Amino acid sequence: MSSLKVPASVPDPYEDAEQLKKAFKGWGTNEDLIIQILAHRNAAQRKLIRDSYAAAYGEDLLKDLDSELSSDFQRVVLLWTLCPAERDAYLVNEATKRLTASNWVIMETACTRSSDDLFKARQAYHARYKKSLEEDVAYHTSGDFRKLLVPLITAFRYEGDEVNMTLARKEANILHEKISDKAYNDEEIIRIISTRSKAQLSATLNHYNDHHGHEIIKDLEADDDDEYLKLLRAAIECLKTPEKYFEKVLRLAIKKLGTDEWDLTRVVATRAEVDMERIKEEYHRRNSVTLDRAIAADTSGDYEKMLLALIGHGDA
Amino acid sequence: MSSLKVPASVPDPYEDAEQLKKAFKGWGTNEDLIIQILAHRNAAQRKLIRDSYAAAYGEDLLKDLDSELSSDFQRVVLLWTLCPAERDAYLVNEATKRLTASNWVIMETACTRSSDDLFKARQAYHARYKKSLEEDVAYHTSGDFRKLLVPLITAFRYEGDEVNMTLARKEANILHEKISDKAYNDEEIIRIISTRSKAQLSATLNHYNDHHGHEIIKDLEADDDDEYLKLLRAAIECLKTPEKYFEKVLRLAIKKLGTDEWDLTRVVATRAEVDMERIKEEYHRRNSVTLDRAIAADTSGDYEKMLLALIGHGDA
Repeated sequence: MSSLKVPASVPDPYEDAEQLKKAFKGWGTNEDLIIQILAHRNAAQRKLIRDSYAAAYGEDLLKDLDSELSSDFQRVVLLWTLCPAERDAYLVNEATKRLTASNWVIMETACTRSSDDLFKARQAYHARYKKSLEEDVAYHTSGDFRKLLVPLITAFRYEGDEVNMTLARKEANILHEKISDKAYNDEEIIRIISTRSKAQLSATLNHYNDHHGHEIIKDLEADDDDEYLKLLRAAIECLKTPEKYFEKVLRLAIKKLGTDEWDLTRVVATRAEVDMERIKEEYHRRNSVTLDRAIAADTSGDYEKMLLALIGHGDA
Repeated sequence: MSSLKVPASVPDPYEDAEQLKKAFKGWGTNEDLIIQILAHRNAAQRKLIRDSYAAAYGEDLLKDLDSELSSDFQRVVLLWTLCPAERDAYLVNEATKRLTASNWVIMETACTRSSDDLFKARQAYHARYKKSLEEDVAYHTSGDFRKLLVPLITAFRYEGDEVNMTLARKEANILHEKISDKAYNDEEIIRIISTRSKAQLSATLNHYNDHHGHEIIKDLEADDDDEYLKLLRAAIECLKTPEKYFEKVLRLAIKKLGTDEWDLTRVVATRAEVDMERIKEEYHRRNSVTLDRAIAADTSGDYEKMLLALIGHGDA
């Protein structure tokens, strides 16, 4: 499901590090070389390149990329080069800062990562920020948003396939009752959404659909002002069908006047190695144009090249 | 700080397994031999004995202990023999069952384990119960108890020594304000108690003490009916001075008419390898009698022998 294209024979990480060092030297930066290397290495390989770079030059590859590159291209290369756990920690930290605050990024990270990956992000947060991820999320949110986001981000969901159908029926009825009463911030809704395994939740939502006449998502349609309700709905989408959620984020980012590079970069950098092929299928189905073409039409230069490389356009 | 006494030369785990198998054979069980072996092996060694036992006899040592032993002696041997993560998972699971429900055990486990150990208990819970620990805790609690216990049990606190004094002052004032208003279930109190590192919390509570005239614990003195307030107070004690909390649990368990073996067993089995020496000091200081003597006076037989061995009485 990864869209990443790694060459059949990958160079030694020291060689990659040396090439990158060369790309930074002289009159201008050689962006093509940076893309050719980094956009075609998996997380473990990128980690080795960073280690080799530090060992060979006593410098941090990320710092050099930060100083050599700029703008949207810089952001996509940096996010991509980070290992997934560090990247998630970085994104959540950014999402708790005033100027880049985003309940959506916190929710998306909490609901679309595997339990192990979410926990690794919490470990990486300790290492990098000398605090816990949840203390920053709890501190920088309030009211209903905190009530929803803290349990989502601290969850360590069971990942087996076992489903308790009696429980699914019972909890579908609880969800339906609370939603009918418009009690969207009810603690029982939050408990069910934030603690149950994805398999169990899927059974619950199927029962909801079968016995209450609508998909839960339809019953949660919000007017544009209700930010909490929109976030709750998106959390359910992320847990149930992440590829549909990400398709929608990409669609809105690309359609937006001027393109929302912030969202586009984040989704490509975080999903390329996970489920980008599924997201591309979904995008094509929904928009009658491939994601490659949509991105090519809306972006340009090195940023465009890097995005296209990450979503698997062209050869490694 | 562990009270465990391990012999200078520990037998091969296969030999220990063989001795245990012999202890089960014949007319009666040889309890002394069981104590002699298991009460003098650390967690890693007990794990090897279980593995060796399974390899040699195709049977689960825990199941054999369960069928050979009985009553309080059985419980202490079983809890002790489990590895710490499995034991914590077992205790929390038990604490969510109707007949053995205990908000206190959940709180105690959440607040006195290291962040890593608490997370390992969550992993062990997945493996053993095919569910997440927090989904059972959230499902089987409600109201203010759920509001406090779920964030406590899902926390992954930062464990460094760094302290932000400005934040400590600010949050001491928040705590004081909410407590003055008797808003004990306020979400800010719960956020601070459940997310901050123990070092940060300690600075906050010191500031509270210095600037508001009382220890926070004094301001939270509850009449006997307010179970939530007592639990909140105990959570703060567990986070701040676990040895004092455990001394009190032991004191009340031993003083109780007939002794509360449930609490006595749990505290000895969970703390022997962690901080039992500190708890013993605290106990002696507070009761003018050593814990050894208090236990010897209130218990008997193999149960007494096992408890005394675990708290370091006599030789390995």
